[in-house]
Amino acid sequence: MSLTIKLTITPHIINLNLHPKHRVKIPAYSLGFRPKPIYHSNALITILYNNKQPRMSQASVSGSIIKSSLIEPDGGVVVDVIVPESERGSKTLEAESLPKVRLARIDVEWVHVISEGWASPLKGFMRENEYLQSLHFNSLRMGNGTVVNMSLPIVLAIDDETKENIGSSMDVGLVGPDGDLLAILRSIEIYKHNKEERIARTWGTTAPGLPYVEEFVTPAGNWLIGGDLEVLKPIKYNDGLDHYRLSPQQLRKEFDRRQADAVFAFQLRNPVHNGHALLMNDTRRRLLEMGYKNPILLLHPLGGFTKADDVPLDVRMEQHSKVLEDGVLDPETTIVAIFPSPMHYAGPTEVQWHAKARINAGANFYIVGRDPAGMGHPTEKRDLYDPDHGKKVLSMAPGLEKLNILPFRVAAYDTVAKKMAFFDPSRSKDFLFISGTKMRTYARTGENPPDGFMCPGGWEVLVKHYERLQAEEATPAAVSA
Amino acid sequence: MSLTIKLTITPHIINLNLHPKHRVKIPAYSLGFRPKPIYHSNALITILYNNKQPRMSQASVSGSIIKSSLIEPDGGVVVDVIVPESERGSKTLEAESLPKVRLARIDVEWVHVISEGWASPLKGFMRENEYLQSLHFNSLRMGNGTVVNMSLPIVLAIDDETKENIGSSMDVGLVGPDGDLLAILRSIEIYKHNKEERIARTWGTTAPGLPYVEEFVTPAGNWLIGGDLEVLKPIKYNDGLDHYRLSPQQLRKEFDRRQADAVFAFQLRNPVHNGHALLMNDTRRRLLEMGYKNPILLLHPLGGFTKADDVPLDVRMEQHSKVLEDGVLDPETTIVAIFPSPMHYAGPTEVQWHAKARINAGANFYIVGRDPAGMGHPTEKRDLYDPDHGKKVLSMAPGLEKLNILPFRVAAYDTVAKKMAFFDPSRSKDFLFISGTKMRTYARTGENPPDGFMCPGGWEVLVKHYERLQAEEATPAAVSA
Repeated sequence: MSLTIKLTITPHIINLNLHPKHRVKIPAYSLGFRPKPIYHSNALITILYNNKQPRMSQASVSGSIIKSSLIEPDGGVVVDVIVPESERGSKTLEAESLPKVRLARIDVEWVHVISEGWASPLKGFMRENEYLQSLHFNSLRMGNGTVVNMSLPIVLAIDDETKENIGSSMDVGLVGPDGDLLAILRSIEIYKHNKEERIARTWGTTAPGLPYVEEFVTPAGNWLIGGDLEVLKPIKYNDGLDHYRLSPQQLRKEFDRRQADAVFAFQLRNPVHNGHALLMNDTRRRLLEMGYKNPILLLHPLGGFTKADDVPLDVRMEQHSKVLEDGVLDPETTIVAIFPSPMHYAGPTEVQWHAKARINAGANFYIVGRDPAGMGHPTEKRDLYDPDHGKKVLSMAPGLEKLNILPFRVAAYDTVAKKMAFFDPSRSKDFLFISGTKMRTYARTGENPPDGFMCPGGWEVLVKHYERLQAEEATPAAVSA
Repeated sequence: MSLTIKLTITPHIINLNLHPKHRVKIPAYSLGFRPKPIYHSNALITILYNNKQPRMSQASVSGSIIKSSLIEPDGGVVVDVIVPESERGSKTLEAESLPKVRLARIDVEWVHVISEGWASPLKGFMRENEYLQSLHFNSLRMGNGTVVNMSLPIVLAIDDETKENIGSSMDVGLVGPDGDLLAILRSIEIYKHNKEERIARTWGTTAPGLPYVEEFVTPAGNWLIGGDLEVLKPIKYNDGLDHYRLSPQQLRKEFDRRQADAVFAFQLRNPVHNGHALLMNDTRRRLLEMGYKNPILLLHPLGGFTKADDVPLDVRMEQHSKVLEDGVLDPETTIVAIFPSPMHYAGPTEVQWHAKARINAGANFYIVGRDPAGMGHPTEKRDLYDPDHGKKVLSMAPGLEKLNILPFRVAAYDTVAKKMAFFDPSRSKDFLFISGTKMRTYARTGENPPDGFMCPGGWEVLVKHYERLQAEEATPAAVSA
């Protein structure tokens, strides 16, 4: 079966700069250059974390701006609002003297996202001016007239009491769920949080049961507070996965170090099956055919909030490791890292955020599939979003013109060839669609999926996870006082 | 009290080209030139309608493109998709042979709007590509990369049966509610009409009771049909008001004929009270102070669908006439015309449409007040939109950079000065706010509003309207077979 990657949906809209010879800077590719793969050696992580200099202040101290040669970050520089170590003491003292805003877990995830520049040029939680542009136009206009994409409102909600406590203070201290002082928010602006309007314009529905809405929007306060962030130290989770949480600056550095001449990002929140692998490997093949010498895959699982029935992050990371170990993906040309953003499940609106954040991390190709960031309608028996809208909207989104969008056809299990393959509508009865729900059901019931659906090592990780889960559920909880 | 017109909300965003000397073409202003005012003589209307040439085909036949010197229409030319008279016979024959789509009243209003170029560069009902951009970005990207504003989806819904009848035909004939063949829709595209998503993203709520939604979206079919329009002849309503329905091309011609060096548009769907008049007159004074010699006011009431409790169009037109007759507005520098669009009551989303359409009609200044295109929330006791969002969103909207936005402070009845004045928060207790609802209550109950609220001639029109209405309500309806 031939693989067709449709590179454009609306040809005049996508700026498809496919051949390296059209680019100004072409990193010289050395055939002898074979960086150690990240999975086997964790070379990158070792370099970065064994350094005695604090991670982010390196760039701040030297004043150097990290840019990979492949794609400009939005606004020209990757935002870095982590306070240099030398100023940490004085800033912490100042923060202690300010009125406090208590953050929910989700707010800390956003502080993390903003602090490392995933949302560049955003330097803090949105003020009303940015919020309205995001809500109505999915983009922000910069002072020089250029437009950057910004499809999700990145906002911090506070309640009436907190608003009153802040009074007329210009700055506030942000306190984590455990009581730690995490950041200062400067030159604040407080404005109304019209939840109904935010939900309707972001999700295109106000039906009850949207995971992010139920967890974080509906219970939130009636005010939003915007301002510029100063984060007192890098956000860490101490869950054994922090070494996977590479910042956009770290990723850009690594792409440059590897002399990548194309970086293609794959966003996912599910285990990698062989359909995904087929697609990623085929994308690499196509890029090589186009003349690229060293395309690097950024396998970039989302690490923030996900809904309860999604596979947890630690299990997914283990599964991804097995996929590389089993050789389904080539560790030599793959970087696995965690994208720290929470999931909105907001379909065509959210996929823009997923793509935009990867621009800031230095990816110049973005793979988009069927129904990105979608889910079932919470109250009706249908997909919440038209499965084709994600890639269409992405290809037309303001501020994403510089990114090469790679839409792909859906992959399914070919029962004749006994492997995952791109769906061929001319013999549709030969194909078996295995949804995320179906995959989880297989793993939960101990039933094996068809041969060739997923590498055995990866599958075992899932089966064990569900066995543990069932064992936990079967154990009566200790009676708490 | 001093009048402060805040010209910008976000100064870097608005391209405020205030002084005529900065413009390339400055029409020479002759002090001796005093065009006859439209109200007293209907000079413009006489010129246009007594001409034996069909109205729109004049431009088509001569091939000339009408441009006022003040502002470029979106896309460079005012769209005109009315079939020249010479081709009408053959096109009508062709239309008769095509599968038919029956239009609702609202669809005819949109055919009218599109046919005259108010929605330029849109040449027909939106295809999915345009619909998605409108829904997500409130704008369309053109082939050359420029962006035009397009905040409302201008779409035509069809039901399953109509879709089936169309089959694989590339073109369809559009039939009016009375059975008249009105237009051909060419190179059609049929796509899903996800009403919930359309409503949520356009109105920012899905609450029941939105007038346009209840009347036209909820009962509409589950498919949208896009394509290029060819309108067989100009849309007429034969309601005695067609002479007020000047097309963008006619308005541009008239502004040029009057040698206007600034045109400021005032959109309204309510009777003109003295607060409105204060604002319009003060805007003119300010424009003169800025150096303009001949600013023209386009008093531009909306003429399409309005909700049941709004004052009907014919009454409003009569009221506007009295306002000019009574000298509250100067007939010599005012053009009164009807804007044929229906109302969505979609606040910040709709005000962009209201402004964009006036660009196409040649206005380079747009006045925006409190809560434009807003209404009360249909199920909660609050405004549906933040009253300040309209002007904020308008000042940041993509594609509207070339328009000078004139936000104004709210006017209210000053009980000390006994006249309408700009609200002064330092003595707020002196001011009486008279809402549209309150004004209608006065008129309905025969109670007089405070002196100086509205000119007596204009007020009388409203009182008589409500007297007629009450008389009709008191008369038992004839029993129909």
